Amino acid sequence: MAGWAYIDEGFVPAEEAKISIFDLGFTRGDAVYDTTSVWKGSFFRLDDHIARFFRSCAGMRMTCPHDAEAIKRILAACVARAGLEDAYVQMILTRGRFANMQRRILSECTNRFIAYAVPYIWIIAPEKQEAGIDLAIVQNRRTPTEAIDPTVKNFNWMDLERGLLESQARGADHACLLTPAGHVAEGPGFNVFWARDRTLYTPKGNVLDGITRRTVMELAAQMGVKVELGDFPADSLRGADEAFLSSTAGGIMPVTRVDGRPLGNGAVGILTGELRATYWRRREEGWLGTPVADLVAEKAA
Amino acid sequence: MAGWAYIDEGFVPAEEAKISIFDLGFTRGDAVYDTTSVWKGSFFRLDDHIARFFRSCAGMRMTCPHDAEAIKRILAACVARAGLEDAYVQMILTRGRFANMQRRILSECTNRFIAYAVPYIWIIAPEKQEAGIDLAIVQNRRTPTEAIDPTVKNFNWMDLERGLLESQARGADHACLLTPAGHVAEGPGFNVFWARDRTLYTPKGNVLDGITRRTVMELAAQMGVKVELGDFPADSLRGADEAFLSSTAGGIMPVTRVDGRPLGNGAVGILTGELRATYWRRREEGWLGTPVADLVAEKAA
Repeated sequence: MAGWAYIDEGFVPAEEAKISIFDLGFTRGDAVYDTTSVWKGSFFRLDDHIARFFRSCAGMRMTCPHDAEAIKRILAACVARAGLEDAYVQMILTRGRFANMQRRILSECTNRFIAYAVPYIWIIAPEKQEAGIDLAIVQNRRTPTEAIDPTVKNFNWMDLERGLLESQARGADHACLLTPAGHVAEGPGFNVFWARDRTLYTPKGNVLDGITRRTVMELAAQMGVKVELGDFPADSLRGADEAFLSSTAGGIMPVTRVDGRPLGNGAVGILTGELRATYWRRREEGWLGTPVADLVAEKAA
Repeated sequence: MAGWAYIDEGFVPAEEAKISIFDLGFTRGDAVYDTTSVWKGSFFRLDDHIARFFRSCAGMRMTCPHDAEAIKRILAACVARAGLEDAYVQMILTRGRFANMQRRILSECTNRFIAYAVPYIWIIAPEKQEAGIDLAIVQNRRTPTEAIDPTVKNFNWMDLERGLLESQARGADHACLLTPAGHVAEGPGFNVFWARDRTLYTPKGNVLDGITRRTVMELAAQMGVKVELGDFPADSLRGADEAFLSSTAGGIMPVTRVDGRPLGNGAVGILTGELRATYWRRREEGWLGTPVADLVAEKAA
């Protein structure tokens, strides 16, 4: 994969970035991360992503060796070295390894910071988005917050992967998981929104506090569209007029079918289309953006 | 860490065994594993471990590139190269990476096999076991089976890690998690047993089908001790006469306190002591064992 990474306190081509098989980030899923993106040379809501990353670190009682300003410079350096205008940029903190294999105390581990920038990733390819996504509501349930808190962004995705296996076996484009109680939760890497009579609905709990989700709510407010947060059954989504997914990796992505059945008239929804067009137009204008070049220049200055 | 690993179809010192940060085994916890042990030169229940490993692979619809016989030879070669008499030996299968970043189909990934042998790991040091473990029943809940099936042995341990952080903050030796419904489940890397009036109790569901757990049940049957499997509340464990943990990494490990309060008279339980002594005596006798030397010789033959 083209791209550059920062690992072990140095920069390497992304393909060379590797972690020990003994890092607890691998063997125990004991790592947190955050993904931001660069579009037309500008990071989007970078401070929000870094603030969330620090909350995730704190949620697992881990300490990042770099402060926000240092992280920004590292991320910008990865993007600049990779020469990318549009990039998917991730920061990761892993637990590291036990200092003493006989004591095995988590607080004694030295937490390890990794970052990388690769070409922008679309969880659903743009051409596929034009036709709209067929979203499967799968049987496998999302891990509940009381076991693993989804607001602490983490790699414990096996429930999501099982959901994805199920949706791919069914020939659907992607998967939406329900909580054990049967409420709509989220999918692998995205939040879910749906609309009925120009009101938007999205799950309140047991989901990632998505930055794109937050952006959708802000855009909706500006457009005078009401957003209702709550615990909704699967049929609420199935009976929607329109729906979409939100993610840093793809933006606002239209859903036109749920479990194979068309929503509304089966075309991309009007509200979805408006939100999606506004999102990308504003991003191209540099809305809430931080130019990569500014951060790289700062470092050189 | 002293030891040898098998990765990318070759043998390397364990310290050099690394995986790409883009392997879905890391970024999505999409990997399965199994851990077996070698004591006095013999693997224990190796066929059982490998059979469970293949069930875990199938549970995630992954295909191991090696069959059981090849895996045995690889594991034995890791132990032999490391020159270990007593070893902790792990086999891992990771999802690998997307063949096509635009399609992102899980079934198109090439699954990757990793194995290693390192000096035997005790999740609780033997000297600590003599005094008995203080086990904390923590607030963080175990992920339910409907989200992530614990019988598919995996690295999605964040719930267990959060439990461990909680127990270590409380000054306890280890953590026991309950299911969301409040039944005793398991801890980070072990099953839990407790006894009252010479009957053993252990959770039936939402736990790993532990090989040491199975061994305990077989030894108990031979000793004429009844084992009851069920959904038990935390107070069943708190009110036990004695208790212990079972794990490949430590065997049968006495618990003498739960949430800081002594069980029975606070000493290692009689039944626990009998089971523990029998387990280690039999293992030293080569019970259900496969000598490492036989597998290495087979390869050379």
